[in-house]
Amino acid sequence: MSVGDAYSASGVDYNALDEFKRFAQSQASSTAPALHAFGMNEVGGCRGESAYLIELPDRYLAFVEEGLGTKNLVADAMEALMGKTYYDAIAQDTIAAIVNDLITSGAQPFVIAMHCAAGSSEWMNNRARWTALVNGWKAACDAAGATWGPGETPALNGMVEASTVVLSGSAIGQIAPKTNRIAGNVKEGDEIILVESSGIHANGLTLARTLIERQPEGYLTRLPDGRSMGEALLRPGHLYSTLLGTILNNGIVPHYCVHITGHGWRKLMRLDPPLTYHIDSLPPVLPEFVALQKWGNLSDEEMYGTFNMGVGFALYVAAEQAEETIAIAKQVGFSAWRSGRIQTSPTKQVVIEPKNIVYTGATLKVR
Amino acid sequence: MSVGDAYSASGVDYNALDEFKRFAQSQASSTAPALHAFGMNEVGGCRGESAYLIELPDRYLAFVEEGLGTKNLVADAMEALMGKTYYDAIAQDTIAAIVNDLITSGAQPFVIAMHCAAGSSEWMNNRARWTALVNGWKAACDAAGATWGPGETPALNGMVEASTVVLSGSAIGQIAPKTNRIAGNVKEGDEIILVESSGIHANGLTLARTLIERQPEGYLTRLPDGRSMGEALLRPGHLYSTLLGTILNNGIVPHYCVHITGHGWRKLMRLDPPLTYHIDSLPPVLPEFVALQKWGNLSDEEMYGTFNMGVGFALYVAAEQAEETIAIAKQVGFSAWRSGRIQTSPTKQVVIEPKNIVYTGATLKVR
Repeated sequence: MSVGDAYSASGVDYNALDEFKRFAQSQASSTAPALHAFGMNEVGGCRGESAYLIELPDRYLAFVEEGLGTKNLVADAMEALMGKTYYDAIAQDTIAAIVNDLITSGAQPFVIAMHCAAGSSEWMNNRARWTALVNGWKAACDAAGATWGPGETPALNGMVEASTVVLSGSAIGQIAPKTNRIAGNVKEGDEIILVESSGIHANGLTLARTLIERQPEGYLTRLPDGRSMGEALLRPGHLYSTLLGTILNNGIVPHYCVHITGHGWRKLMRLDPPLTYHIDSLPPVLPEFVALQKWGNLSDEEMYGTFNMGVGFALYVAAEQAEETIAIAKQVGFSAWRSGRIQTSPTKQVVIEPKNIVYTGATLKVR
Repeated sequence: MSVGDAYSASGVDYNALDEFKRFAQSQASSTAPALHAFGMNEVGGCRGESAYLIELPDRYLAFVEEGLGTKNLVADAMEALMGKTYYDAIAQDTIAAIVNDLITSGAQPFVIAMHCAAGSSEWMNNRARWTALVNGWKAACDAAGATWGPGETPALNGMVEASTVVLSGSAIGQIAPKTNRIAGNVKEGDEIILVESSGIHANGLTLARTLIERQPEGYLTRLPDGRSMGEALLRPGHLYSTLLGTILNNGIVPHYCVHITGHGWRKLMRLDPPLTYHIDSLPPVLPEFVALQKWGNLSDEEMYGTFNMGVGFALYVAAEQAEETIAIAKQVGFSAWRSGRIQTSPTKQVVIEPKNIVYTGATLKVR
């Protein structure tokens, strides 16, 4: 089974979406000159990256629009089973999706907006749930060091399933001093440092839910570590903003960063140049991914090409800064591993040597 | 029938949503000090206004997160009937919802983000539709004077109806010079200038769709002007950014502005102070609203309290600047009317004298 097939079988055709995205990116790109009237400029090459970047005389602004995807359907299912809400975790997951994209540019978020589109105003009748969502959103903004700015809460009857909400948002960040910009200047010999995830991210949930719902005990199926699958999926996502901020404050500007989301480890080759991202040792795989692989009878190639597998963020740094980067990660509470290095090559690829996996550039059509 | 009842009957309970919003606003408000670490400050009083404002030494930034609501369900229904897409108009409507909120602060938008959440990746199989959406989005960004920055296009299977998309986005604007900020300093004697809308806005669609679908010919029901109701609803919304930009460039800083959306003309009293917004003459009502009122057997109070009725934007200006403001509106292509004035009063209210309507402050719990 090739990468993408399992996902298509679960109902999401990334190829169709990717074609739309490429056309949108090209049309959007043509609008960049509008910034000149404001004394601003688009930062070349930022389209297709995780954050849109605007240059001002004294700083860069970074702008991200992101969503949680369908992960809160897991919270909805678990609330029905366990009688308690998980929307505090879901709030943090949404902010993690936004903020962890933003910081790949070297920006720190200063304001975050919430968009909570309910399928029905009846969703608001469950006070414990929406209180948890609001409190979790505030706590995650505090943890990210940003203010919670605007918000929008429509009721979209007939458009969104009445029992749930679509969660998304946007954020603005600042890169200052401008030398803190993470610009993609990777070179041969740079080390690849992988940083732990807390579990599944906002991507891959449609496939995961399909696999879990086939199990006799569904979300209550126990993992070897004693947690239910539902609990494992609902462990809130890590926010890496403090990690990046601390790295930059210590004078290390990573050459590139990747937030591992859609397309899994294929995202490691998000940059354009023909380089090999060579992984020679693998961090431990989290038990929820082991279970999903078994239940779906999925290949390693499929798994690493879709899920984060326990790695939430990747940093590409000069070899001489690898050790200090790892030490900073530990200092802010994350496990991190020297896992490989950048090599020149005729074409772009990710090589996961311990698993004999090679993802070619063609498997990541959208950057 | 009191204001809100007709809407509740169509399935949206604004009271439940408003309670959520008030709690969210209060929690969000407590996060403002996070801006200090960036050398920024929240602009006092901006929470509850249409745009969130941040003060920098040399400018203000304005930030808006907004959505289209369910209006594109009309485009979906009309495409099934007419065999052509209306998503170019829908794109402009989404941007109008975002930008017309942003500019009430005196900001001009410099970057706009798109969020298009599909119910299924199959939505992308209709190339004419998504091409129109992308082209319309680009054209509206051009018209608003902003660049199209980031975007997000998830497929939300099992969460959004498979046949449609949820459209939303965000924008950042700039107020410079800082004296261009529209600060809400209204005072007795200020004139209320109403500016034409192109038709229905992004709000009120759930009710409108309910009423239209009861008609034997539904969206194809003819209005007296010959258009079908569907066509009338899908006339793209005006963008008022050029209007506001031209007014400011002519040295007029309105004391306050209102984008007429949810809660209809009740929004005229969005400001906190106890003032009377006294309307003494009414602009012409657009035929689609006349038809909706008839079909729903709705009172004037219900109609003006829910829909824009043909007025998309309101400007409160010093009496001596009213004439020039009207002239500028005409110059950029909009009809505008001197329609009333601000009066001091013991409590907040909107008085629509020609219709004998009084909306008290209690009918607008969310600002």
